[in-house]
Amino acid sequence: MAQRELLEAPLPVGGIRLATVAAGVRYQGRPDLVLLEAAPGSRCAAVFTRNAFCAAPVHLAREHLAQAAPRYLLINTGNANAGTGAAGLADARACSTAVAAAAGVREEEVLPFSTGVIGEPLPVAPITAAVPQLLAGLAADGWADAARGIMTTDTQPKLCSARLTVDGTEVTVTGMAKGAGMLRPAMATMLAFIATDAAVAQPVLDAVLREAVDCSFHRISVDGDTSTNDACVLLATGAAGNGEVTDGDSEAARALAEAVGDVCTQLAQGLVRDGEGASKFVAITVAGGEGSDECLAVAFTIAHSPLVKTALFASDPNWGRLLAAIGRAGLADLDVETVSVRLNDVLIAEGGCRAATYTEAAGAAAMAEAEIRIDVDLGRGEASETVWTSDFSYDYVRINAEYRT
Amino acid sequence: MAQRELLEAPLPVGGIRLATVAAGVRYQGRPDLVLLEAAPGSRCAAVFTRNAFCAAPVHLAREHLAQAAPRYLLINTGNANAGTGAAGLADARACSTAVAAAAGVREEEVLPFSTGVIGEPLPVAPITAAVPQLLAGLAADGWADAARGIMTTDTQPKLCSARLTVDGTEVTVTGMAKGAGMLRPAMATMLAFIATDAAVAQPVLDAVLREAVDCSFHRISVDGDTSTNDACVLLATGAAGNGEVTDGDSEAARALAEAVGDVCTQLAQGLVRDGEGASKFVAITVAGGEGSDECLAVAFTIAHSPLVKTALFASDPNWGRLLAAIGRAGLADLDVETVSVRLNDVLIAEGGCRAATYTEAAGAAAMAEAEIRIDVDLGRGEASETVWTSDFSYDYVRINAEYRT
Repeated sequence: MAQRELLEAPLPVGGIRLATVAAGVRYQGRPDLVLLEAAPGSRCAAVFTRNAFCAAPVHLAREHLAQAAPRYLLINTGNANAGTGAAGLADARACSTAVAAAAGVREEEVLPFSTGVIGEPLPVAPITAAVPQLLAGLAADGWADAARGIMTTDTQPKLCSARLTVDGTEVTVTGMAKGAGMLRPAMATMLAFIATDAAVAQPVLDAVLREAVDCSFHRISVDGDTSTNDACVLLATGAAGNGEVTDGDSEAARALAEAVGDVCTQLAQGLVRDGEGASKFVAITVAGGEGSDECLAVAFTIAHSPLVKTALFASDPNWGRLLAAIGRAGLADLDVETVSVRLNDVLIAEGGCRAATYTEAAGAAAMAEAEIRIDVDLGRGEASETVWTSDFSYDYVRINAEYRT
Repeated sequence: MAQRELLEAPLPVGGIRLATVAAGVRYQGRPDLVLLEAAPGSRCAAVFTRNAFCAAPVHLAREHLAQAAPRYLLINTGNANAGTGAAGLADARACSTAVAAAAGVREEEVLPFSTGVIGEPLPVAPITAAVPQLLAGLAADGWADAARGIMTTDTQPKLCSARLTVDGTEVTVTGMAKGAGMLRPAMATMLAFIATDAAVAQPVLDAVLREAVDCSFHRISVDGDTSTNDACVLLATGAAGNGEVTDGDSEAARALAEAVGDVCTQLAQGLVRDGEGASKFVAITVAGGEGSDECLAVAFTIAHSPLVKTALFASDPNWGRLLAAIGRAGLADLDVETVSVRLNDVLIAEGGCRAATYTEAAGAAAMAEAEIRIDVDLGRGEASETVWTSDFSYDYVRINAEYRT
């Protein structure tokens, strides 16, 4: 059995170097441009937003990935370069070309990523001007600065590492992400970059990423809004020197998938904890479902309910709002008599009404916690799913009412 | 062609009397209990919430409607009697029985309705104690007081009338509604009561109500949360003396359907205008769709987006959030090049990006209005749908964080 440990301090990954500068994309004096370099021979798996209005850099990154394995990822904040049409695509291309020319690689070996305001032209000049400084500053221990450099309304960097043994070789997985708002990832989250020094065959790497994203970024929501710029990238440099993992069913592949899953889950939960205006971290588990789909339908209906979210903000055990959300989740023939609901360890409702043992004091005590578990049992099957979300506060409204000003 | 006019001042309806008292269901000295009496021989059509956790009075009203045409509707605020199980059903029955006994009708001729906090036992005693006073106070001009008596967090009563001619006879339609929050009606809205003095056959009355609800209460959303207590009732007393409308395809049936539709739309829009914390009234029209379903999917995705709603609150023409919402609405093969978006009369986006003619000043001026039209053209078909919604403000959070305290 492969051992693994999850660390909040970032470990460098053999074959990966990063640099971060304040290029002045939108604000002066604030780190806003990151370059990540992967050693030659690295493999890359990536998933992108399902939003039909996906951003220019997403289009270009997809195009480039189809042609070559990337050597450089260029990530700017302050401007999403989304809803910018043909001009936006040309701007993304100009940034990639500048990196390729200065680094001596082909344009398709550079992937662009952008996050920030939608619909405004990308300021290309400050980005291309900063490329020499970025290349000069590349360092293996650049993860912490980079995790800050990709933040927008995030208040904390999200960064973590896992260490595991693959076929007797010690291997590292390190990842960073940013999120904050417009956060209901579909295919991936806002921006997440994970790297490992393991040697992994491309189909295995693709499967490892898909599985990890599905149980992490696809299980969170801050506000139900899916970004135009979501992207999650997994790089494997092979620098650890293990024999390449080519069998997706091998113990090595499984160990790697679990480690990448751990890193993604840690990052995804970090995004929720730092969701715009979030004062609570809420894990919603729906068990006893006939299938995964209906558990997720109920969990996300609760996670997106403004009434549940404002009650969480107020620490008000207004469990009627939970029942109302469960009841409108669209489940066919839901028998409310079999449904039970717990807040942390307090049974609040069963048999279609308030539990006989429930007291308002116990409910209020549970809701006063900063971390809250909402456990729903549908009582009609074996499936179970967990999603993570945050509450809805004055600050969410303030941040999003003031975001562009 | 039948003529009709829509009036904001309520007109009495022949055969209908109402009374309102302050029974002290939850608060003292505030009107909270309404009795509506329909003359013998009146017909009734009703639609109720699709929420699986529907309230005890909804269960009982459905049961009674299957047995008899109602003579009395008893409506309390302050307590929803939802999530209350078998005890809740017994409580609803006790209230109905009290009215039936005092009025000398059968229990199944009384329909109970409740709205307010979910999950707490209904205080039966103050309700039954007030029944004699209600019966003594019944009056044809009781609509205005009743519309206030059914309010919860509503700040304004919603009430309107239409007058039309049916086969040469003058006919009146008057309706009242309450809403405010937990407002994304499914089958009907929170509580709406409409009455006409027209003589209408039952199948025609049922069809008239279904059609009216579908184009009014089913086209609004404040927060995407569907209540456990939604109900919409249409009474027809026949007191106007017209020949009974028995043919659903007749001009008379059409005129009546349009008048009831007008009244329902006016009430539904009133609910949105008075949505919890609402500072803007927003009409979202999605045209150029392949079918009604995809137009509604896009319109409701926009209407439910917390990012769009906070931008509306801030009067910020942050149209990128509109594109992001359209792009995640789940439409297969949406070609963003054919989509255009207008704010009032300002073209803001077309061809997948900002319109060449767009200026921030024009967008800001449009967003500064209290009434805003968001017009989306998908450019791929002939279908069109309109929904109405409100913005997302500090006050929405405040009202729902403080609701139970």
